[in-house]
Amino acid sequence: MFENTRPRRDVAIIGTGCTKFGELWDKSLRDLVVEAGVKAVEDAGIYGKELQLVVGGNMSGGLFIGQEHTGALFADYLGLNHVPSIRAEAACASSSVALRIGYIAVASGLYDYVAIGGAEKMTDVYGPHATTALASAMDQETEAYCGSTFPGVYALMAKRHMHEYGTTREQMAKVAVKNHENALHNPIAHFQRKITVEDVISSQLVADPLRLLDCSPISDGAAAVILAPADLAKKHTDSPVYIKASAQASDSLSLFSRRDICTLDATLFAAKHAYEQAKLTPKDIHVAEVHDCFTISELIAYEDLGLCKKGEGGKFMESGQTLLGGNIPINTSGGLKAKGHPVGATGVAQVIELVQQLTGKAGKRQVSGAEIGLAHNVGGSGATVAIHILSNKI
Amino acid sequence: MFENTRPRRDVAIIGTGCTKFGELWDKSLRDLVVEAGVKAVEDAGIYGKELQLVVGGNMSGGLFIGQEHTGALFADYLGLNHVPSIRAEAACASSSVALRIGYIAVASGLYDYVAIGGAEKMTDVYGPHATTALASAMDQETEAYCGSTFPGVYALMAKRHMHEYGTTREQMAKVAVKNHENALHNPIAHFQRKITVEDVISSQLVADPLRLLDCSPISDGAAAVILAPADLAKKHTDSPVYIKASAQASDSLSLFSRRDICTLDATLFAAKHAYEQAKLTPKDIHVAEVHDCFTISELIAYEDLGLCKKGEGGKFMESGQTLLGGNIPINTSGGLKAKGHPVGATGVAQVIELVQQLTGKAGKRQVSGAEIGLAHNVGGSGATVAIHILSNKI
Repeated sequence: MFENTRPRRDVAIIGTGCTKFGELWDKSLRDLVVEAGVKAVEDAGIYGKELQLVVGGNMSGGLFIGQEHTGALFADYLGLNHVPSIRAEAACASSSVALRIGYIAVASGLYDYVAIGGAEKMTDVYGPHATTALASAMDQETEAYCGSTFPGVYALMAKRHMHEYGTTREQMAKVAVKNHENALHNPIAHFQRKITVEDVISSQLVADPLRLLDCSPISDGAAAVILAPADLAKKHTDSPVYIKASAQASDSLSLFSRRDICTLDATLFAAKHAYEQAKLTPKDIHVAEVHDCFTISELIAYEDLGLCKKGEGGKFMESGQTLLGGNIPINTSGGLKAKGHPVGATGVAQVIELVQQLTGKAGKRQVSGAEIGLAHNVGGSGATVAIHILSNKI
Repeated sequence: MFENTRPRRDVAIIGTGCTKFGELWDKSLRDLVVEAGVKAVEDAGIYGKELQLVVGGNMSGGLFIGQEHTGALFADYLGLNHVPSIRAEAACASSSVALRIGYIAVASGLYDYVAIGGAEKMTDVYGPHATTALASAMDQETEAYCGSTFPGVYALMAKRHMHEYGTTREQMAKVAVKNHENALHNPIAHFQRKITVEDVISSQLVADPLRLLDCSPISDGAAAVILAPADLAKKHTDSPVYIKASAQASDSLSLFSRRDICTLDATLFAAKHAYEQAKLTPKDIHVAEVHDCFTISELIAYEDLGLCKKGEGGKFMESGQTLLGGNIPINTSGGLKAKGHPVGATGVAQVIELVQQLTGKAGKRQVSGAEIGLAHNVGGSGATVAIHILSNKI
């Protein structure tokens, strides 16, 4: 299963660009794509005309703004016609999947310079309609048909995790507190506001046991990175970051078809593949961005990525190891919870946070001596998981 | 621009599967995907578990049936979890772009067996809403905002082509007559009904000069092919078909930004790349499927693909060379016009017709001695064009 061999070439990230995440009423999808894309090209020190391929992640331009064909739109608005441009969609993992396509394209030797983008414009629709649009990532004929939403689905996972492993309300709340704390130091974050466990627990109930402050927000934003083969990377930057692993796995769209709703099997499969590809173990990871669309998701990610034992995600959070300054700081960016979650942009934005960490540019969020980082991006309730492992050494 | 080198390995198509195209009221997107996918796997003589990657083209599950995340859906309903699965979207060229991703994945050496699918369920929404959904492939902030639809945009192209080159109403009608004639012999075709030039010209006006019988229909359908490296292909089939070229180019979403609205520059770029990659010229092509979403599109494709001189598409049609039995039969399947146009499935369905032609299995549609075929698939009004050249010889 998965791949056969090592790719022909190593792949590096030579430039990054990101917009602010938030409710950006004055910016369209086009504005966001252009801002992130131009920043990334400038950061890479290349000319736009050197790009040979664009791959853009976008979850639902159709339902959010009535715009499909967003691959071509990315190239068009970035002035990159007639460069081929592809839109990849895998719900909230769209731009990680875009990155994976770009990785294969460069690793294969077929392409040198590839732009990977991710963007979503979510706040142009009324809130409940955004929730409906997001629900298009679950199984329409089963879960959505029964009236479920994503907070509802993740609430089921949380309830079961509490029942099965004794995970507590407070442990989940601590994820939100940590990620809001981290976001205080991230200028692009949607929220820059300290919160307490009490704030989370007393916030409005959304889907029991999940409350408002357990949920990532509806955000606008775009992110872009430029890929190049490792042997050309040093021409453009003194501090390239290398993609040591790029892995993806699928699972059933609907929870009821899963072996265990407290585990994302797609994370297990993708992580196994990623660790093997990078020849690393969970203990080798210095910093990680994991998919915390809801607080429970981050606890489950700890377990499924092998950072702690199954069922001990809550205790692992309580131990403080994932705080800034802990053994393995998680979601130093603020995560989806506090940095924001413009779904199509999230995967690339996770990778950009890791690039900043691995090049020592994360400011007050900096993890001292970070050399290896992992990005974990989930589509839907786990029907897609994409994992990338990055290193500042080849 | 475009690629650097020849890929590491040649890529073959070892199996195909296609549903009937039409108004399939009794079938969901899931049903269609499963039918086409299982047929392709059976035809390839492999086990589903041998597949390492799925790439599925789907234009707008979001707007047609409220379902995004269709990559994961394809894998899920085909029983292929936890194989990674990607949705590619490029409007009506979605599944050609999916094929191109799969081609790179196999050519790179990273994957052996890859399933490429395409599917669209369009008839679950009321007709005008389908037109609105399709209009999401044009620029929302300019063309669609002004109330334009795709028949409107292509009507502008047709009007200008008539003005510029003297193309006639009858020449356009002859495209529809030919493609309906071809579809009579294609059991999967949406329409199996002979029509005349008079029928086309007297059919209801849609957007002057385009009439109802100038337009491809709103169809449901799915198509799938299985890719393998050339050196493994003969294990599975006596008659593999090889992908000699896979090319893609982009252009502005909106017509008003184009150099010339009688030409698809993306076709020119993609065709140049494809012919170079295959080391072939237009004269070497024995049979082609070209993107005839409207009759004018086929005439413009003749020109842009180099089958005739610029402006002479109408005369080329009149010459009879593109009829079954002519020098270079075009759209032997019936084309989008008569075979039907379930947008996400169209690109792979074009390729399946070529595979049937190149393996001598096209029945009454068979082009005698066909060894090299070309598929030309357009997204929107030409913001994406993907071209594949296939051969029954390596």
